[in-house]
Amino acid sequence: MSLATATATATHASRLIEESGQQAPYLLTPGPLTTSDATKAAMLHDWGSWDDDFNRLTAEVREQLLEMAGAPGDAYACVPLQGSGTFAVEAALATAIDRQGKALVLANGAYGQRAAKILDYLGRAHVVLDKGDYLPPRDEEVAAHLDADPEITDVFLVHCETSSGILNPLSEIAEVVKARGKGLIVDAMSSFGAVPLTVEDVPFDVMVSSANKCIEGVPGFGFVILRRELLEASAGRSHSLSLDLYEQWRYMERTGQWRFTPPTHVVAAFHTALAEHLAEGGVAGRLVRYTRSRDRLVAGMRAMGFATLLEDRWLSPIITTFFSPGHPSFDFGRFYAELKARGFIIYPGKLTQAESFRIGCIGRLDATVIERLLVAVREALDAMGVDDCRPVA
Amino acid sequence: MSLATATATATHASRLIEESGQQAPYLLTPGPLTTSDATKAAMLHDWGSWDDDFNRLTAEVREQLLEMAGAPGDAYACVPLQGSGTFAVEAALATAIDRQGKALVLANGAYGQRAAKILDYLGRAHVVLDKGDYLPPRDEEVAAHLDADPEITDVFLVHCETSSGILNPLSEIAEVVKARGKGLIVDAMSSFGAVPLTVEDVPFDVMVSSANKCIEGVPGFGFVILRRELLEASAGRSHSLSLDLYEQWRYMERTGQWRFTPPTHVVAAFHTALAEHLAEGGVAGRLVRYTRSRDRLVAGMRAMGFATLLEDRWLSPIITTFFSPGHPSFDFGRFYAELKARGFIIYPGKLTQAESFRIGCIGRLDATVIERLLVAVREALDAMGVDDCRPVA
Ligand SMILES: Cc1ncc(COP(=O)(O)O)c(C=O)c1O
Ligand SMILES: Cc1ncc(COP(=O)(O)O)c(C=O)c1O
Repeated sequence: MSLATATATATHASRLIEESGQQAPYLLTPGPLTTSDATKAAMLHDWGSWDDDFNRLTAEVREQLLEMAGAPGDAYACVPLQGSGTFAVEAALATAIDRQGKALVLANGAYGQRAAKILDYLGRAHVVLDKGDYLPPRDEEVAAHLDADPEITDVFLVHCETSSGILNPLSEIAEVVKARGKGLIVDAMSSFGAVPLTVEDVPFDVMVSSANKCIEGVPGFGFVILRRELLEASAGRSHSLSLDLYEQWRYMERTGQWRFTPPTHVVAAFHTALAEHLAEGGVAGRLVRYTRSRDRLVAGMRAMGFATLLEDRWLSPIITTFFSPGHPSFDFGRFYAELKARGFIIYPGKLTQAESFRIGCIGRLDATVIERLLVAVREALDAMGVDDCRPVA
Repeated sequence: MSLATATATATHASRLIEESGQQAPYLLTPGPLTTSDATKAAMLHDWGSWDDDFNRLTAEVREQLLEMAGAPGDAYACVPLQGSGTFAVEAALATAIDRQGKALVLANGAYGQRAAKILDYLGRAHVVLDKGDYLPPRDEEVAAHLDADPEITDVFLVHCETSSGILNPLSEIAEVVKARGKGLIVDAMSSFGAVPLTVEDVPFDVMVSSANKCIEGVPGFGFVILRRELLEASAGRSHSLSLDLYEQWRYMERTGQWRFTPPTHVVAAFHTALAEHLAEGGVAGRLVRYTRSRDRLVAGMRAMGFATLLEDRWLSPIITTFFSPGHPSFDFGRFYAELKARGFIIYPGKLTQAESFRIGCIGRLDATVIERLLVAVREALDAMGVDDCRPVA
């Protein structure tokens, strides 16, 4: 489906969605997200996974993702993989890190921790630099770790650690990693497509993301963009047939098809989402929209007395963590339900210490939606009888 | 969405699909399949993966699948897993077979071979009883293997081996396997939902299937139905975080949620597909429709001179392999294109020796569609100038 067809179909789809009486709440979460009607309408078609029409979708998606990462096709490859984002992270780690290698995992939240857990399963040597719930790993400490332990071959970093919403200082870390000739593996799951990340600026070896984050597709697959040389050297390294990125790549290059049944409808939706991404001005356009939403959100919540977990300079345009009010009448379950009844779904926090919740700005929505959310938050607080939103001291 | 809502929405969706000018070809393949408009329309909604509304879908799907397998909920569990069917097979093998165990893999096609390959990756001991392209494994030879090698702990069998379309003699094999107290792992990917398979008749330990086969959902996840006892004993056995069925199960039981982001739209579509399955009369109803289509197909193709790979008694109602005509003007690529131009997508063969192709009867279609296919086949042959459909002698 071309974008024009998709948009035409979407006009009908909007009517259809309205007629069905399903006014879906906005998903202000780290994903799955609110997607456009055109993206959903692209799923109203059944594709043969062996057929050229579908193979063309796959080829275009792979090409467009490489372009978005500024990754030249002769040096980098894009390999999509069925499953959730974690599947792609696991596949990437198994491919990128030699069985004799050793990884330094930079962790400041659930997704850094999860990478370490994956390496436990894989039985690959690793050390974790754990910064707790919300502090960023910095270049000097990474440099110190690398200098102290020459056995380290690769560094893993989460770009936007979605557990807190922090945007980690990727560029400064990339610099010290590459200066020491180490491999750089970036989990850009929740940032790619909205926060600039190109090979030129950040010479990564491996980057992982997925369909249902900033490119605003529906969930069902992840993708890895990685150096071809590394991929070529990784034959036989995987611990898993299903997650073998090298074999997935080889098969795709040879046949144009996915190695095992692809989530065809999800891929078609993603193809439309990519066209809309381009039409919005690509990464730059999306960054502007998300940033406006985030700025309005943070200002509006602060005006009500809420406090953010992070200092301003670490806030991402993806998702923001707010401390729960210390007021005795505040109850997250109730808050969630009140907001849902008003058409907004938010997300619980993921901090180990303090009570918190998260509000995302990614997906098909803008600052006018955030404006309405702020009204709903006010109403929800009133309904609970919460008149002071400051966190526990 | 209830079935009533889904059906209402589907009426609109049909109009929408028509208006978009997308007359999709019928997919006469082993999947992804032609799905109903209601099933596709269920994807026109974005679900929060943390939200109760979505958790209810997941719970209902798991319950209904257990029911379909006649598996009592106190003895069996249903664990869905993101990814394609192969991911679920790999997860099932890693869970079911003890690291000290040894598997007998019964192979007569690509999917039996693939299970053996998975066990290679896992480093778990196994032997393969390979029957080649189209012969069924029989009870006496399985018994002989088990008696000769007491180290074997588990037997893996593909129910309908989709590579040839053969319906393997599951019951007779189950009997000898269970009589010897061995574990029975069944890949019922392409048969579950259309060919009766219940715990009462076939006391399996583990059964694997996926969303986009006989239940007629769209692709994006698989599921495993297995004995709870086995599941409970399998903690720490998996080689992979993403494919760890035990952890997936535990998390789902505790939270009602999937451990990592689920393919929400695909799950919603499957939920609708299950309601339609029930409305059609469940497994029995589906078997009748598929069998009628298959009977019409085989009779019609034979009337044109085509020969089936299998003897009648081994034919499944799922997919049928035909030998390619030996006529010098026959060309599969051309045949495929001619049929596609007429609205039908068929599938290439998977035999190691002879040229062949496959035509599936699963998905949202019936014998009237097969009738039209037969006309198209006749036209395609005429267009190629093929007047003799007998295989190479
Ligand atoms: C940074 C990051 N990494 C990994 C993941 C895991 O992705 P999934 O839930 O699709 O497995 C997420 C999901 O939110 C994420 O934000
Ligand atoms: C019997 C059988 N097993 C396994 C598979 C693999 O499933 P998937 O292609 O979804 O990975 C298939 C797919 O057709 C199958 O028919």
